[in-house]
Amino acid sequence: MTAAAQGRPVEELVVGVLGGTGPQGRGLAVRLAAVGQRVLLGSRDGDRAREVAASVGERAATAAVGEVSVQGGSNTDVAGAADLVVVAVPFAGHADTVAALAAPLAGKVVVDCVVPMGFDELGAYVLDVPEGSVAQQAAALLPDSAVVGAFHHVSAVLLEDLSRPTLDGDVLVVGDDRAATDTVQALAGRLPGMRGVYAGRLRNARQVEALTVNLVSVNRRYKAHAGIRVTDV
Amino acid sequence: MTAAAQGRPVEELVVGVLGGTGPQGRGLAVRLAAVGQRVLLGSRDGDRAREVAASVGERAATAAVGEVSVQGGSNTDVAGAADLVVVAVPFAGHADTVAALAAPLAGKVVVDCVVPMGFDELGAYVLDVPEGSVAQQAAALLPDSAVVGAFHHVSAVLLEDLSRPTLDGDVLVVGDDRAATDTVQALAGRLPGMRGVYAGRLRNARQVEALTVNLVSVNRRYKAHAGIRVTDV
Repeated sequence: MTAAAQGRPVEELVVGVLGGTGPQGRGLAVRLAAVGQRVLLGSRDGDRAREVAASVGERAATAAVGEVSVQGGSNTDVAGAADLVVVAVPFAGHADTVAALAAPLAGKVVVDCVVPMGFDELGAYVLDVPEGSVAQQAAALLPDSAVVGAFHHVSAVLLEDLSRPTLDGDVLVVGDDRAATDTVQALAGRLPGMRGVYAGRLRNARQVEALTVNLVSVNRRYKAHAGIRVTDV
Repeated sequence: MTAAAQGRPVEELVVGVLGGTGPQGRGLAVRLAAVGQRVLLGSRDGDRAREVAASVGERAATAAVGEVSVQGGSNTDVAGAADLVVVAVPFAGHADTVAALAAPLAGKVVVDCVVPMGFDELGAYVLDVPEGSVAQQAAALLPDSAVVGAFHHVSAVLLEDLSRPTLDGDVLVVGDDRAATDTVQALAGRLPGMRGVYAGRLRNARQVEALTVNLVSVNRRYKAHAGIRVTDV
């Protein structure tokens, strides 16, 4: 199932980020690159991805202890070349993007951090997903990948702010493939100050994704960039 | 709307707990009583409630600094006599219990901590609630009450274990009535080591309730009694 990542230390995996030009993708890319993870940053527009990758690489280098490697390309090329792929596209394009990449993503760990969120005059709310959750939608479209949900609650603002050397929060990791969730927990643990915490099966992904909507309310009320910690673990 | 609690310090409010003979209700009752909150413990069976109230009061007294007051009665009597009412009944009886108490609960803050959770061979999962969430179900059935969702993530085991003087976690408080959510945040803050954190409107209650299911998975994996903290607040 997770052939590309099988048995290899997480540090050695090439991490692709689809939708890597958006705030969440860019933030994860810069933080992972800064700790030495090789990153491929993808976008629909490969040229745009290469531009952003150059800038992400430069910023990561200012905070990095070792070598920084960030390259850009089309989502298709990145999906094919990476060992593990993070999906950080807008929800509106999620199903189409993922469905089109089923072949290059086969045999890989696919980490979905997409949040089904809408806004109206009352604030943020959760969008309906026919499959139950975005992660389950990805799993339905990627039968030969190991889909994991993670990285929903990490503030893009804090990820991108490299003047803060340490983040503060846990990454809730949901999925049905133990090897895949273990790998994603290890990847989350590479972000400074963060832990990956296993938080259940994919059928319980919806509320993890949707809790991000509540964090938006927290941010508005408290002027914060809220995340969460799991206590007693 | 919240006539019974209007303008009064939270310390002075008589807190009713419906379903107070169950683990979550009993745990909240004993901790609140130990900090001096006057508590009315309700159950369908008033005699059973009085028995449990006596035992809860005795236990609270061992950890209390001041006077302890815990009295038991039927859910109906408690709903009528309390200023603020916590609903801690099993989900299966939630709609019927709440609907039958609409009159005595009118004008009061009603705090719903019920989790729509089922178990099968794969572990815990979220039950569907036609109204979207248990709190929204209560709000639909109690048009003259101010319904707030809170206290879902506090471990009943830790609440009842008075040998731990301090708890560790935040209470996510959701609701549409600002005075009511403020009151419930203040009540949550009376539990030692805990805070009440505003986390959005009632339409975003579902994922707060449902996250409890993920905490069950956390507990199983890590042999813990997990709760959550909101970071950067």
